[in-house]
Amino acid sequence: MARYFEDIEVGETYELDGRHEFDREEIKSFAERYDPQPFHLDEGAAEESIFGSLAASGWHTASACMRLLVEGFLDPETSMGASGVEELRWLEPVHPGDTLRVEVTVLDKRPSESRPEMGHVRTKLTGYNQHDDAVIEWTADGMHRRRD
Amino acid sequence: MARYFEDIEVGETYELDGRHEFDREEIKSFAERYDPQPFHLDEGAAEESIFGSLAASGWHTASACMRLLVEGFLDPETSMGASGVEELRWLEPVHPGDTLRVEVTVLDKRPSESRPEMGHVRTKLTGYNQHDDAVIEWTADGMHRRRD
Repeated sequence: MARYFEDIEVGETYELDGRHEFDREEIKSFAERYDPQPFHLDEGAAEESIFGSLAASGWHTASACMRLLVEGFLDPETSMGASGVEELRWLEPVHPGDTLRVEVTVLDKRPSESRPEMGHVRTKLTGYNQHDDAVIEWTADGMHRRRD
Repeated sequence: MARYFEDIEVGETYELDGRHEFDREEIKSFAERYDPQPFHLDEGAAEESIFGSLAASGWHTASACMRLLVEGFLDPETSMGASGVEELRWLEPVHPGDTLRVEVTVLDKRPSESRPEMGHVRTKLTGYNQHDDAVIEWTADGMHRRRD
């Protein structure tokens, strides 16, 4: 059943079912293409960095959380994109073998003033690793279709 | 020559030389892996969306800008990562055939209180397409090694 603007409850926290496991190959291949800094590409360089061992690009971590958000929260019938995110924080490094899950809390919502067919929903997303450490968080303004 | 904390000028705008061209295959393959929403995957669905035609995932656009930032601004000898970004905005959609470039303005910098070997540098990044439309922007707090 499609989840419209009206169906999203302010104050609710959604614990999404999906998981994303990071492996060494994906960390390096993402970094080679989009974030070729030594601590994302090379174990030796990572050991000498503040990360201590090979660490995923923060954009890779964000993208993996987006995947979980699309699969577990955003409805293709009703989700209309987002204009941006606030306060994107990389709280802890993500290393090979880490598995992430995502929680989404609805902070606020309001009908669009200019486009009556949609509304804005402000959410806070937090990504946790397998030790339940928060590794990433952001706040986003998403656009969702209204029922009528 | 390595660019240390001391070498970064507050108020300076750096126009980076690199370019990233978006093609249909990369837009779809990024979206399949990290942001499988219909308007990033399918031309027909994109035509019916607010994007009007196939549009890159916002995380793909951000990642491409990160690549240009790493290649054109961040120094592997002195750049020590970033704790997050503020006010990430997707201002205009990015379509197949669009070519992005990046400008970085240094807003502020301060030595770290807890770690004397580094300092914080706050920058605003703006990504422009080939029509000089700003398509993405963010503000980041990056950590840079100090000279002594």
